[in-house]
Amino acid sequence: MNEERNDIRRSGGPRKSQQIFDATLDLLAEKGYEGLTIEGVAQRSGVNKTTIYRWWPSKGALLGAALVGARQLELTPPDTGSLAGDLEDLLGTITTLLTVRPACDIAVSVLGAATHSPELAAHIKDFFADRIARERAVFDRAVARGEIGADADPMLLVDLLAGAAWVRVVLRQLPLEEGFVARTVNTVLNGARATG
Amino acid sequence: MNEERNDIRRSGGPRKSQQIFDATLDLLAEKGYEGLTIEGVAQRSGVNKTTIYRWWPSKGALLGAALVGARQLELTPPDTGSLAGDLEDLLGTITTLLTVRPACDIAVSVLGAATHSPELAAHIKDFFADRIARERAVFDRAVARGEIGADADPMLLVDLLAGAAWVRVVLRQLPLEEGFVARTVNTVLNGARATG
Repeated sequence: MNEERNDIRRSGGPRKSQQIFDATLDLLAEKGYEGLTIEGVAQRSGVNKTTIYRWWPSKGALLGAALVGARQLELTPPDTGSLAGDLEDLLGTITTLLTVRPACDIAVSVLGAATHSPELAAHIKDFFADRIARERAVFDRAVARGEIGADADPMLLVDLLAGAAWVRVVLRQLPLEEGFVARTVNTVLNGARATG
Repeated sequence: MNEERNDIRRSGGPRKSQQIFDATLDLLAEKGYEGLTIEGVAQRSGVNKTTIYRWWPSKGALLGAALVGARQLELTPPDTGSLAGDLEDLLGTITTLLTVRPACDIAVSVLGAATHSPELAAHIKDFFADRIARERAVFDRAVARGEIGADADPMLLVDLLAGAAWVRVVLRQLPLEEGFVARTVNTVLNGARATG
């Protein structure tokens, strides 16, 4: 087994996959999904076009892999010691993603593009499934600490938080007022406790 | 003053504006923003192309007007007698918009297209501003009935509800489980009461 195969086994992609993912997301943010091409990614990342095609036969497939694999979108679930602290950290990360360039351009472009590509839509679904699977640890610890009932619904709580930020920034196109994160977490957490 | 001018004063558009808006949203749902043309709208609505151009000089402008003016997207704020009832009605309307065709295709296409058109983005902003202005009546009545404190933040509560539905359906691409509306309203309302 040669070195390349070893590397593939570890990362599920070619050796320079991070550079490829970075180039993919950068180009998406700059040019939108229409302007994203595998040729452009090859040029920007300095990786041969045929290498990229060998791993990802279409730009939908490549973008899907970039979403799950990219450093910029990495999520390590927080562990601050309290559920309120963890949720403020999570929502803080989301509001940064939605308001700071180029992350916000990537987020909005990707989701806009999903309407044109069922393949990309499937990758977006995987991306969010991967996130919630990792975020569950935050709630497991909160249940163990007695901060929230075992019957709380982590996905509903995450969706309330993320959704409020998404609606305000992307749909309403309004700024997040100061204290948005703390107030939103407080409301949702009080709701979860009173409902449990 | 002729009849046409009178009509314009009332509706802010030509006489057959509802047919034009219907055709605009139908075509958007079928073909996406790229495939939407004023020519196509003229054909489908039976209105002369030049009449449409006289009112809306671009498809971004036309789509913006259709969003605010279309019957399919009309929102009469509910008045069920309780805040929980009103919010379940509001969220029920939103979940229907997001899950029933063609409304869901329209919603996702419009928001995807906003990334390509600053003009359309501005119209979407107006659309949501118009909605929240009308939804405030629900909260004013709830404050008057003593169901919620006067310091409650209607926009945050609406965004939590709408956002949770949006994330679940559009981003996660998961079905809304039975009881989603009641459970989500209950959690948000408990949160609003406990936080106030």
